Amino acid sequence: MAIRHAPAGEPFDVAPLGARLEGARTVALFKSEDLEVMRLVLLAGKALPPHKVAGEITIQCIEGRIEVTTDGQPQVLCAGQMLFLAREVVHGVVALENASALLTIALTGSTPAQHTNDPARSQR
Amino acid sequence: MAIRHAPAGEPFDVAPLGARLEGARTVALFKSEDLEVMRLVLLAGKALPPHKVAGEITIQCIEGRIEVTTDGQPQVLCAGQMLFLAREVVHGVVALENASALLTIALTGSTPAQHTNDPARSQR
Repeated sequence: MAIRHAPAGEPFDVAPLGARLEGARTVALFKSEDLEVMRLVLLAGKALPPHKVAGEITIQCIEGRIEVTTDGQPQVLCAGQMLFLAREVVHGVVALENASALLTIALTGSTPAQHTNDPARSQR
Repeated sequence: MAIRHAPAGEPFDVAPLGARLEGARTVALFKSEDLEVMRLVLLAGKALPPHKVAGEITIQCIEGRIEVTTDGQPQVLCAGQMLFLAREVVHGVVALENASALLTIALTGSTPAQHTNDPARSQR
């Protein structure tokens, strides 16, 4: 993941990437004391495996369509739609078409993301 | 301000309002443990007076253009641009044209917004 942090107080771009989407990668836009914002880039058919984070999250679809599955329940997010996830909710994401999405993560009580398909957990 | 809270796990609309903008009002989309998200609607020339909040903030311009002034420094945000503000940064917003913007506020250590033009404060 390319890291390019936006300084506080300076505008940065979160518009649709359009024709640049196919060559783009997921980028961390900034991470500070309370908030982390990243632009997730997923090409059609690509997925983030189920995982969870300590803090609350918003997922805003910027372009394309993604399917977000929380606790086994799939939801389709189109461009211009946002989803709010409570703390510790296990969620997976798959791109139904080339897509980018803005993720905002509350760092309250934050710990690194835990993948539910970790070998230690999948043996239950 | 009309309050219409989006439940966790259900998509809600943050797309440009377009022709509906002129009749729209600022709405709180949700407020939970770590995050509060609202859509600010400001018609051309309207302003939010300088104020600050305890937690970090992102301001994402959805449509139109707004000018955000932080510590006396104005920045223009166009549709598709985002600004990150650190904790306790005094900021004012004025709409340069009819605009809507998504505000995400980290509630970490949150206290109600303090207006710097409160009578009690302006007597310093």
